[in-house]
Amino acid sequence: MGKPQPIEYADASPEVKAVFDDIKTSRNVPDVNNFWKYLANDPTTLKRTWESVKEVMAPGALDPLVKELIYVAVSVTNNCGYCIASHTASAEKAGMTEAQFGELMAVVGMANETNRLVNGYRVPIDPAYEK
Amino acid sequence: MGKPQPIEYADASPEVKAVFDDIKTSRNVPDVNNFWKYLANDPTTLKRTWESVKEVMAPGALDPLVKELIYVAVSVTNNCGYCIASHTASAEKAGMTEAQFGELMAVVGMANETNRLVNGYRVPIDPAYEK
Amino acid sequence: MGKPQPIEYADASPEVKAVFDDIKTSRNVPDVNNFWKYLANDPTTLKRTWESVKEVMAPGALDPLVKELIYVAVSVTNNCGYCIASHTASAEKAGMTEAQFGELMAVVGMANETNRLVNGYRVPIDPAYEK
Amino acid sequence: MGKPQPIEYADASPEVKAVFDDIKTSRNVPDVNNFWKYLANDPTTLKRTWESVKEVMAPGALDPLVKELIYVAVSVTNNCGYCIASHTASAEKAGMTEAQFGELMAVVGMANETNRLVNGYRVPIDPAYEK
Amino acid sequence: MGKPQPIEYADASPEVKAVFDDIKTSRNVPDVNNFWKYLANDPTTLKRTWESVKEVMAPGALDPLVKELIYVAVSVTNNCGYCIASHTASAEKAGMTEAQFGELMAVVGMANETNRLVNGYRVPIDPAYEK
Amino acid sequence: MGKPQPIEYADASPEVKAVFDDIKTSRNVPDVNNFWKYLANDPTTLKRTWESVKEVMAPGALDPLVKELIYVAVSVTNNCGYCIASHTASAEKAGMTEAQFGELMAVVGMANETNRLVNGYRVPIDPAYEK
Repeated sequence: MGKPQPIEYADASPEVKAVFDDIKTSRNVPDVNNFWKYLANDPTTLKRTWESVKEVMAPGALDPLVKELIYVAVSVTNNCGYCIASHTASAEKAGMTEAQFGELMAVVGMANETNRLVNGYRVPIDPAYEK
Repeated sequence: MGKPQPIEYADASPEVKAVFDDIKTSRNVPDVNNFWKYLANDPTTLKRTWESVKEVMAPGALDPLVKELIYVAVSVTNNCGYCIASHTASAEKAGMTEAQFGELMAVVGMANETNRLVNGYRVPIDPAYEK
Repeated sequence: MGKPQPIEYADASPEVKAVFDDIKTSRNVPDVNNFWKYLANDPTTLKRTWESVKEVMAPGALDPLVKELIYVAVSVTNNCGYCIASHTASAEKAGMTEAQFGELMAVVGMANETNRLVNGYRVPIDPAYEK
Repeated sequence: MGKPQPIEYADASPEVKAVFDDIKTSRNVPDVNNFWKYLANDPTTLKRTWESVKEVMAPGALDPLVKELIYVAVSVTNNCGYCIASHTASAEKAGMTEAQFGELMAVVGMANETNRLVNGYRVPIDPAYEK
Repeated sequence: MGKPQPIEYADASPEVKAVFDDIKTSRNVPDVNNFWKYLANDPTTLKRTWESVKEVMAPGALDPLVKELIYVAVSVTNNCGYCIASHTASAEKAGMTEAQFGELMAVVGMANETNRLVNGYRVPIDPAYEK
Repeated sequence: MGKPQPIEYADASPEVKAVFDDIKTSRNVPDVNNFWKYLANDPTTLKRTWESVKEVMAPGALDPLVKELIYVAVSVTNNCGYCIASHTASAEKAGMTEAQFGELMAVVGMANETNRLVNGYRVPIDPAYEK
């Protein structure tokens, strides 16, 4: 198989095209981004992932901007370059300001720091948090 | 030194007491939680961390609830049990509902999954995200 | 020292050449890949790592393809770009089909997702798993 | 909400009961394990996760044992204690021998080591792996 | 906002210039490195991070070289390419030899391996380590 | 196989006993710690890991205390509770003071924070670090 290659709409099977069409309609974009073109190598994973993302990222008890901020926080913690770039763009589209991005980074950095201080000092959970 | 031990208020040095007092006043709590009692073994780190946390978690462009959700997202990704327990409690105090917690978990789970799909398929960043 | 540089066969010390020769013979390849050329900067680590890899990746209770799939699973989870590329190639050489790669990615993604759901919901281990 | 609590079958809503029933039937077990009881706090995530797991872990191009080995490899890399315990049990149920478990651990350990050697030596990807 | 961009000294606000000046004086360098130019997008985070780094990395009970080695160990474990490059350079400036770099990599690799062996074998903490 | 169990000296095979004896002699301890008792389930991994650890942790260009500090730094970053406990003990045995432990934690925390700031701001490597 070699290095994974993107599958463009014109070369896609009908089942892949159906997912691409749904993404384009749902997001009102002319083409899907690379993530979906690569996932299209496995139509089952493409379909399941898209349906899951659509369900998880829909407006609900948390609004779309907050969900995108959470997505960026995870991606920055895991150092997924593509995910940071794409979800920062989605967050902006959902209304993220530069000041909000700055605070997001500050919280993510601080949480990653204090997570390790907790580990190293072997801090036991306060009984109040166990209720 | 052996296993790190917590430092209680009564046994604390004046500089540690000053930080504990500020935490108790700022948060309106009768005692500080274990994290601070363990950090008190290093008064310099205690002071710097508290001042940083106070600055970073203050209401700003993002409100306190959103900041706590981001903190939980990072802690869940890193599997820091103490941090998950304490910041879930802080998020609830800041107003998090059970439905919001459920959606937070769903987004964190999904982001951790898609981060790896991106890695494995070696998805290159779309030019649009590089601007 | 500056940025680490690869050590080519022609410039290698006799002890490094001996390891390179063993890799080339064992794998029946005309040259070693970059990983070994960089490790050659520390001949002790080069020798120990090669001997360990040779022992660990040899056919045993698990066949070579399964071992390569596991290697890719770890590398994708850690986002090691080089390791993903080189061990995906090794897995293909060991017989991995495109369908198997797709399922590997699906399992790796799912495991990374459910690992975090477990963390966030603080799921205690069922007694049955402790036996 | 406090610390997440498990939802037992008797206390579950009809939609949760339906998922629990499907898990019990599919796996031929008298009760679901803790993971599902905690996820049941969010019926949407419970349903989506179960359907995804069922699809991803089904026999396909990779057999169920190999899929469980991959799941354990990811969980060990991420240090998810619950996931290690539950998927080691699943792997055994799927036929994993003690010798296979030993080799699995050896490969996971080695991959985590070499991933970092690659990072630290900044090894560039060989052109052959980019095709 | 688009992709984050560096802020050069000439375009910086007075508060950013003050931090840049302090970095240049403290380190005796003609210009700050990219990390600070990007952080300058959020002057609050820039100032807090610089003051924290200055405090944490100052000579103390551990000398500056040891602190840089620890920084590299963390960065390699997390696979932060920029951090590996910049702190390897700092370590060299603080006196790291090629042999020391080789041993650093060997320890980091080994620790990442044994961390996972511990996870997978679910090794309980010896009572002696709990005192 | 069930949950991994420790293998005590009295129940060990001759090849495992030989490794246990070498650990006890090398470290001048009356018994090996749990890590080795669990690894003993796979004598090949036990032997390889012990020989690798002995080689990597021996005094060299870095002294044993520095190597233990690096081991703790990695273990804290990965949140391996057993490894944090055992290598903090080893570091103390090698002479670590409480002040050094405090600074170690401070550097580890800071590195984990700045690693994520770098990721989130997508900081490109300065040309000077590429030489």
